[in-house]
Amino acid sequence: MPSATLLVSCPDQKGLVAKLSAFIHSYDGNIIHADHHTDPEAGLFLSRIEWDLQGFQLERAEIIPAFSGIARGIQANWELHFSDACPRIALWASKQTHCLLDLIWRQRAGELPAEIPLIISNHPDLEPTARSFGIDYHHIPVSPDHKAEAEAQQLALLQQYQIDLVVLAKYMQVLSGSLLRQAPPVINIHHSTLPAFAGANPYHRAHQRGVKIIGATAHYATEDLDEGPIIEQDVVRVSHRDTVADLIRKGRDMERVVLARAVRYHLENRVLVYQNKTVVFA
Amino acid sequence: MPSATLLVSCPDQKGLVAKLSAFIHSYDGNIIHADHHTDPEAGLFLSRIEWDLQGFQLERAEIIPAFSGIARGIQANWELHFSDACPRIALWASKQTHCLLDLIWRQRAGELPAEIPLIISNHPDLEPTARSFGIDYHHIPVSPDHKAEAEAQQLALLQQYQIDLVVLAKYMQVLSGSLLRQAPPVINIHHSTLPAFAGANPYHRAHQRGVKIIGATAHYATEDLDEGPIIEQDVVRVSHRDTVADLIRKGRDMERVVLARAVRYHLENRVLVYQNKTVVFA
Amino acid sequence: MPSATLLVSCPDQKGLVAKLSAFIHSYDGNIIHADHHTDPEAGLFLSRIEWDLQGFQLERAEIIPAFSGIARGIQANWELHFSDACPRIALWASKQTHCLLDLIWRQRAGELPAEIPLIISNHPDLEPTARSFGIDYHHIPVSPDHKAEAEAQQLALLQQYQIDLVVLAKYMQVLSGSLLRQAPPVINIHHSTLPAFAGANPYHRAHQRGVKIIGATAHYATEDLDEGPIIEQDVVRVSHRDTVADLIRKGRDMERVVLARAVRYHLENRVLVYQNKTVVFA
Amino acid sequence: MPSATLLVSCPDQKGLVAKLSAFIHSYDGNIIHADHHTDPEAGLFLSRIEWDLQGFQLERAEIIPAFSGIARGIQANWELHFSDACPRIALWASKQTHCLLDLIWRQRAGELPAEIPLIISNHPDLEPTARSFGIDYHHIPVSPDHKAEAEAQQLALLQQYQIDLVVLAKYMQVLSGSLLRQAPPVINIHHSTLPAFAGANPYHRAHQRGVKIIGATAHYATEDLDEGPIIEQDVVRVSHRDTVADLIRKGRDMERVVLARAVRYHLENRVLVYQNKTVVFA
Repeated sequence: MPSATLLVSCPDQKGLVAKLSAFIHSYDGNIIHADHHTDPEAGLFLSRIEWDLQGFQLERAEIIPAFSGIARGIQANWELHFSDACPRIALWASKQTHCLLDLIWRQRAGELPAEIPLIISNHPDLEPTARSFGIDYHHIPVSPDHKAEAEAQQLALLQQYQIDLVVLAKYMQVLSGSLLRQAPPVINIHHSTLPAFAGANPYHRAHQRGVKIIGATAHYATEDLDEGPIIEQDVVRVSHRDTVADLIRKGRDMERVVLARAVRYHLENRVLVYQNKTVVFA
Repeated sequence: MPSATLLVSCPDQKGLVAKLSAFIHSYDGNIIHADHHTDPEAGLFLSRIEWDLQGFQLERAEIIPAFSGIARGIQANWELHFSDACPRIALWASKQTHCLLDLIWRQRAGELPAEIPLIISNHPDLEPTARSFGIDYHHIPVSPDHKAEAEAQQLALLQQYQIDLVVLAKYMQVLSGSLLRQAPPVINIHHSTLPAFAGANPYHRAHQRGVKIIGATAHYATEDLDEGPIIEQDVVRVSHRDTVADLIRKGRDMERVVLARAVRYHLENRVLVYQNKTVVFA
Repeated sequence: MPSATLLVSCPDQKGLVAKLSAFIHSYDGNIIHADHHTDPEAGLFLSRIEWDLQGFQLERAEIIPAFSGIARGIQANWELHFSDACPRIALWASKQTHCLLDLIWRQRAGELPAEIPLIISNHPDLEPTARSFGIDYHHIPVSPDHKAEAEAQQLALLQQYQIDLVVLAKYMQVLSGSLLRQAPPVINIHHSTLPAFAGANPYHRAHQRGVKIIGATAHYATEDLDEGPIIEQDVVRVSHRDTVADLIRKGRDMERVVLARAVRYHLENRVLVYQNKTVVFA
Repeated sequence: MPSATLLVSCPDQKGLVAKLSAFIHSYDGNIIHADHHTDPEAGLFLSRIEWDLQGFQLERAEIIPAFSGIARGIQANWELHFSDACPRIALWASKQTHCLLDLIWRQRAGELPAEIPLIISNHPDLEPTARSFGIDYHHIPVSPDHKAEAEAQQLALLQQYQIDLVVLAKYMQVLSGSLLRQAPPVINIHHSTLPAFAGANPYHRAHQRGVKIIGATAHYATEDLDEGPIIEQDVVRVSHRDTVADLIRKGRDMERVVLARAVRYHLENRVLVYQNKTVVFA
């Protein structure tokens, strides 16, 4: 039974919940989930409302014009999604497979409501893997001198494959602001340590520092590397018994589960972004 | 700035969110938090709505009659709470202090919006502790032969002190169904292990079994010992390096934090109970 | 650089650590890891000693006779393993793939020091999956009437493929005591909930009960279903927002990681079993 | 039954475990726990050996001279501790009570094998609290101009009270290198966030950033503020539903448990420090 989901953010004011729910109700919609949040500091109201389309008196195409008037009145940013839509994901990878395989497995197992028609990599290594799953693989080398050309190719592929979401499944290249502005949303994953170690060999440095916890952070990619809105984080305990190789292995496990959760939240339209942070109606 | 909170559960039907929010809005109330849940199996809708009382057009005393009509129409069970109410807690203990002291400390630190005027124990041991915090202490011994009398005394104290919530902070006696029906809500804490070990010396048996995780469960007390609606649970890792004494210590830590969280959820009116389970709008 | 590992358990007595380490030292071995545990209740001493084979004055074949005398003197149960051995795993599955694929992926990624030459299933469904990884697949249907025959076939395969470890990767059949006595060690995975729900549809019942935590337990299989020595456990939080399908998905994630950790501990010779429990020198 | 514990770190070489255990064994000592670790990068061997003093053939005073020869031969840094020693802790606090009360409560409950004869604060606020527990309270104001004098007073008190361990239970002042060199070991606690936010109002900034996890880190204090050897860390989940006040409350809970664990590890002589990191034989 398909449902529709409205994601709304607007300046906080009285009566917003009433207005939104009255809109659904006035067309005989049955709300399945409704979750609201007010950020008093930002003066913002954020809402996610999901309702059953069965018996709803508006055709899908009529919902946008019908809601536009309400949205204008409350100065809302908003999105409308249908649960039977099947967003198209492009996975970007380099050479590591743990995040890539995990996402493909979850998609095949029915955990991720999406298609994965495209893998883009700056290395040729994973082509056999892609082929074994019947997913198109495009090898686009990236060098400092030809980055702009590579990004043009990447953008063309995103358009050609009608991609709705890019997931950087351990794609070890920085994306330009220009690409990010033209691309659909991009989710990235990176390791996290307490304290954080920027730069190369983070697990090696975490090991040298004797940290007792390592983790991973999934976020929307922005020009500021690893500084985009955080979607999900998790950690795992480590000790002096863990070698650098153990930290890397445990870190990989964290990256897999945290990235999968973040992609799932996004696909289920549970994430609202504002002021470089997120509300996740999980 | 005080707020009001409605907790509502009723048979699921279309338009409930709209109805509830329209009620608040029609009197110029500003909804701060609204959380809803539908249990399709039970056919139930559950909701928690909190709104600012500033500028609300109904006096507090007028809210109940105003909402009664709506509640009747949707066959709702409901409660109304005000954030500046200060519920009165009775702590029941035996000899152990870890949960008792933790709750008192949190109340003093402003973490628990409540008063604690009364401690009841079946042992005299904790009287000096109670006295040092200026809390009345009543020692009511419980023996199989005189349990009914003891419970009558306990109920009389609950009434005399106008108690709103009983917290069993390691009170090692079973309460009768009769007492539970006459008392205000009662929250209990007990250890949890995977697998569970009923009966005496659970930590000793968990140690013998070599479990790798122990935990604690906070729930509303019912006649079926330890089978009431679960409010909160948490666990901690253990290993062969942990002695039985270590398990007991780690278990105590879990009991403290899990009980404190459960009491807090209850005091903030975040818990709805139905069919021996809870929805916690945390 | 290969290493040797001794796993020793014996009645506790003075001087055991000294005896074991003197043995290694007397042949110029360099101890890399040494972990000991005393269980005072059981009166047992348990030890894992790993030493570098480089420069060690005994040939591999000489170690067993050399240590036998010491072992006899301290009445020890003991095992000797070499780090460059590559144990052979048989994966047993039914229809679900999450544990199976996860173990294969980890083995391919170099996380599990083992080979996986054989998959046995009571269903034909996973044959294409096995084939895609180049792993032999044997479909052995199991019916109550022909269970003994099926087990005879299974045992023959274990022998034919020289299997060192059986991993039940969601194999939904009970193994007989007879099979377990003749087979190499068998590791099983099952869901865990607090409280535990025996029997069918555990996630459905956990959902009905409103539990706040679910988990998974990996253990050595014994005749008492799900009662064997626990190797590893872990849990994840759930709430009323999680449907039964969400519990199943989260449970699957727990099963994957907990089973993988348990298999890894076993393969690295970190697990000692005694009195239906384990010491895991992790 | 009292035990002795040797903490040893020395350049890695063959036969160290054998040497240490032979030493204990040669005087008829029974090793209760022995834990070793080799850091190949640092070329260091680290060991903790605990043995029963009952039946041990050396008097306590004879152990040091007896072991000195061995220690010299292996170029070891080492410490000897007795389990029935009762180290004396000075708690340093400012105005917050959560860590202070938690440590006092645990000490009274028998969880921390230590005495707490002294509280030092740069504020007068907690004097009644200290008095209620019968602990001496010294108010030493700290101003930039008179910091040296204040530290002289503090050092004098540490000497006068024969303090073995200083625990900064939310003492909001930086200690000078000079004081740290003259004082006994100092354990500090601070909040941790992913990413980390240096400077003022960390919880406020973590909230603004929308982090999903916050934590706490306990470490030995060094001149580099919050950069000393990490003893213990832990984290807790947060979401957009958590206000800044909730983050502070959850952070406090983390600080309490993490600091208590770190102090306990130290008191049980489980922590070895080298190269600005720790091995915790937990």
